[in-house]
Amino acid sequence: MPAYKAPLREMRFLLEELLDVGQLSRLPGHEEATPDTIAAILAAGAELCERELAPLNRPGDEEGCHFENGVVRTPAGFAEAYRTFVAGGWTSLAADPAYGGQGLPKIVNFVIEEMISSANLSFGIYPGLSGGAYQALSLHGSDVLKARYLPRLADGSWSGTMCLTEPQCGTDLGLVRTRAVPGEDGSWKITGNKIFISAGEHDLTENIVHLVLARLPDAPSGTRGISLFVVPKFLPNADGTLGPRNGVGCSRLEHKMGIRAAATCAIDFDEAVGWLVGRPHKGMSAMFTMMNSARLGVGLQGLGIAEIAYQGAVAYARERLQGRSPSGAKAPDKLADPLIVHPDVRRMLLTMKAQIEASRALAYWIGLEIDLAGRHPDPARRQAADDLVALMPPIIKSGFTDLGFAAANLAVQVWGGHGYIRDNGMEQLVRDARICQLYEGANGIQALDLVGRKLGTGTGRLLRRFFHPVAAFIAEQQGDAAMAEFTLPLHKSLARLQQATAWVAETGLRRPEAAAAAASEYLELFGLVALAYMWARMAKLALGRQQGEDGAFYQAKLATARFFMAKLLPRHASLSTSLMAGAEPVMALPEAGF
Amino acid sequence: MPAYKAPLREMRFLLEELLDVGQLSRLPGHEEATPDTIAAILAAGAELCERELAPLNRPGDEEGCHFENGVVRTPAGFAEAYRTFVAGGWTSLAADPAYGGQGLPKIVNFVIEEMISSANLSFGIYPGLSGGAYQALSLHGSDVLKARYLPRLADGSWSGTMCLTEPQCGTDLGLVRTRAVPGEDGSWKITGNKIFISAGEHDLTENIVHLVLARLPDAPSGTRGISLFVVPKFLPNADGTLGPRNGVGCSRLEHKMGIRAAATCAIDFDEAVGWLVGRPHKGMSAMFTMMNSARLGVGLQGLGIAEIAYQGAVAYARERLQGRSPSGAKAPDKLADPLIVHPDVRRMLLTMKAQIEASRALAYWIGLEIDLAGRHPDPARRQAADDLVALMPPIIKSGFTDLGFAAANLAVQVWGGHGYIRDNGMEQLVRDARICQLYEGANGIQALDLVGRKLGTGTGRLLRRFFHPVAAFIAEQQGDAAMAEFTLPLHKSLARLQQATAWVAETGLRRPEAAAAAASEYLELFGLVALAYMWARMAKLALGRQQGEDGAFYQAKLATARFFMAKLLPRHASLSTSLMAGAEPVMALPEAGF
Repeated sequence: MPAYKAPLREMRFLLEELLDVGQLSRLPGHEEATPDTIAAILAAGAELCERELAPLNRPGDEEGCHFENGVVRTPAGFAEAYRTFVAGGWTSLAADPAYGGQGLPKIVNFVIEEMISSANLSFGIYPGLSGGAYQALSLHGSDVLKARYLPRLADGSWSGTMCLTEPQCGTDLGLVRTRAVPGEDGSWKITGNKIFISAGEHDLTENIVHLVLARLPDAPSGTRGISLFVVPKFLPNADGTLGPRNGVGCSRLEHKMGIRAAATCAIDFDEAVGWLVGRPHKGMSAMFTMMNSARLGVGLQGLGIAEIAYQGAVAYARERLQGRSPSGAKAPDKLADPLIVHPDVRRMLLTMKAQIEASRALAYWIGLEIDLAGRHPDPARRQAADDLVALMPPIIKSGFTDLGFAAANLAVQVWGGHGYIRDNGMEQLVRDARICQLYEGANGIQALDLVGRKLGTGTGRLLRRFFHPVAAFIAEQQGDAAMAEFTLPLHKSLARLQQATAWVAETGLRRPEAAAAAASEYLELFGLVALAYMWARMAKLALGRQQGEDGAFYQAKLATARFFMAKLLPRHASLSTSLMAGAEPVMALPEAGF
Repeated sequence: MPAYKAPLREMRFLLEELLDVGQLSRLPGHEEATPDTIAAILAAGAELCERELAPLNRPGDEEGCHFENGVVRTPAGFAEAYRTFVAGGWTSLAADPAYGGQGLPKIVNFVIEEMISSANLSFGIYPGLSGGAYQALSLHGSDVLKARYLPRLADGSWSGTMCLTEPQCGTDLGLVRTRAVPGEDGSWKITGNKIFISAGEHDLTENIVHLVLARLPDAPSGTRGISLFVVPKFLPNADGTLGPRNGVGCSRLEHKMGIRAAATCAIDFDEAVGWLVGRPHKGMSAMFTMMNSARLGVGLQGLGIAEIAYQGAVAYARERLQGRSPSGAKAPDKLADPLIVHPDVRRMLLTMKAQIEASRALAYWIGLEIDLAGRHPDPARRQAADDLVALMPPIIKSGFTDLGFAAANLAVQVWGGHGYIRDNGMEQLVRDARICQLYEGANGIQALDLVGRKLGTGTGRLLRRFFHPVAAFIAEQQGDAAMAEFTLPLHKSLARLQQATAWVAETGLRRPEAAAAAASEYLELFGLVALAYMWARMAKLALGRQQGEDGAFYQAKLATARFFMAKLLPRHASLSTSLMAGAEPVMALPEAGF
């Protein structure tokens, strides 16, 4: 089992040096969120993750959740850890002070979510879902519903779920069959079967708040006829105490590849009492406002898994003695050299490191923009931030979860056969990471969202929020010869991406299948350019600081940036060639030919 | 659980139409191995795999092996299936008739190994290891040892193992500590601890024959001081009956990510009686002669997993209704279209199909060359075949096992969240496939073998055995305009590979770390060109037959070939760029910087 050490130095480098997190404390309502305060919170979060959550990860996987007579029990230690989590105030970081929250900037939650995902992905799913439910109610719920549910979600005594999927519908929510009929006093009665409900039933909280997609009797078919309801496991009394059990039950616990300590449930609603959240038939748009944020959250899960996988791989590569360096023994006093001297092992470690560090930079940049979008006094700046935040979720969700899975596999590869043994904890990372590419919109769906929705929004307005700063940065570096090794490849890849963008937009108009066939490669290309941009920005900083105190830190940044440019970024050329191959190679084969 | 259907039409296309398997029956000793006979054997093998082995795969994973007091029990049904397997003569296909074998060409075994790997990878490991032990004894054992062991390995009543790995040594066999001291009457006493021993202990056979690497008392250190021994679990009496239990015991069963029905054991040797196989201190070279064949076998495992994953993905994509085609409803009478109409789903399916079919062609080509290397009357032809067979194992082992894992993951992706559920059988393929990239030389080691050993052999003689036929084929197609869409990209990629080869050879001389840093990308590039060559050859055939009977089969070949050229082969450009980036980006970061 690899020990987890939160990369606090990395985090502070990004927040304080690269992104000027200090600007947050100049926003109204965030005056207390100074860099030092944020750093102190992150240090406390790191300790929680390292000491409480990480040690439960391996045993939680081995034990899994238990299901008996509709009751779900989480693995040993989870309930206690959750109490510690709640007592530390970790469920209420970003919640509104009006409902008992701490009102901290969202970026703080972002960083904590990454740490939790490194330490114990399964554990993080429980409070993670509560955060989603909080957000849905807070954005779309009536004042009565907000007053009833938000304080309990914020203080962690109740948890939340999102009930979307049904046996016949996953991606295609237009096929939802769960129905709602009017009940008494403005409530509704919900009946239907939901599956794959994360944290759908468990023993961590006294109540569970389900957010459920269902159809009203007069609903039009398809996605335009779906409404959102809040359906609690126990019906709350007017005084806030728990009333009778609602018609909600867990009928099955899924037996999964990974995240075995996270309860994934089939939930049956049998005339369960619920309340409408938002307007009738507008459930999908309520969902959409949450989806961007949920997708960023899953992206952070991928990043978190990648980080712990990297740490496990580095530790083993330093310690395991096997073979000799091709340039002669590096540890002649020992029977063999450590793995880390071998170029192919270094290639694997650097492939992880170079993607993780730039992905983290990208994630935190976007996290900060969320806060700016919410509170910046200048409406134009808010709009700019909002646009960028709207654009990036598919790239972050898909790119980071692919990274999480790839990094977990690279780490297993560094461990060799020992990586395949369950006791060593590395293969669990592969199994856990795999879910992130599937849930919250499978990665292919992210690509279609990017190409089909984001690209066209405001005739490319969202896109320009990314392209302009990148182009501006490149232009600013013109006179800086030391930056050329970073800006030239960045420039080249940006040009490819712009060309590919034009191709997708034009060809997609003529033949929608061509855009859809190119979508996954286009998304990958976009992600590559985004990471290249983050590396160029980090390199700029590092060049100026490599001689100073802590110079080794900045020199390592430069070496990693060079690895990225030389070994990973070249993929942009192939991607742009193959994505522009058009629909024909993908569509020509008749169905019978498969 | 995806049903398995052996792709017999594909197999006959390759053997009979592409590779002229009929030439085998013109070789001395293989007169009876006519195409029809081979096809009949493959049909029988298909039935065995589909009906007996595939249904045990999912329950075998769920149950796993059992360990109690040194005894290992395989999952329910395995012992019975093994009896059926033995009764059908499947353990003796390629064995020498002098020892009770059927003396069939190796290519038959190749195809059967692929089928077994599709149906039940765990099951296949038991007879697979026996095949390795048979080969080791047959090539290096004395006549006495051969007479004692080969008939029992061939008839399947005994099984074999390869005992190489120890806790402190995996890749680096020079670190082997197990020792052998002279015993009575020419035998030896072996003492040491081996780990990760596949089929090391089980209940399928009455005896287990361990082939063990150990050191003699006077052995030089490193790999030049290792000898090979045969150490049976029960000592055979002179009359062939089983004598007393030897000092060999299983001390642990590994708890693994996948192949859970295959017993992976820690085996302790405590003054166990063994006999030297081959000459003292020459154990490594005895191992090396087997290694090429074992690596091809693991490659076939990867191919087999890719095939069953593909079948499972296609079945789901045809059946699951979700969303609408971007060009309008294709199944307007239903609530949604099947997944297979979606371009991104087709991209995933074709990515599997295009690699699987060309990989199979490559594997069978090399399988046939093994038979030619063994029995062709012309020594020059034998040498040419032998060279090609020596060259390709790293490319096949590494490339095909990466494909197996990638295909299993693509299949899970097509299944979406349902792919993550154990009952559906898709995630098991991911877990099972993962071992193939690790054992029998981790894939990075394959790349180092290619670059460090194969490239230089006979100053490039092995390489030319591949480059020359590819270049000759391209030259032959000059006048064929219909072939240009296949030969042009093939030619371009071959040129890149030749350039990269020259770079690796030259740079590697100056700085060995540069070659090692480039090795994995070089291997990937090589594999890509090899598949492109197989597609061009298949396309040539298909172009001539697409109008005839079964024209749809050949048209599908052409569509798939076009997908490969347009969507997968372009990767050669990026690979060659990044592999030629040199050692610096990989070596610059000091160890402390990780």
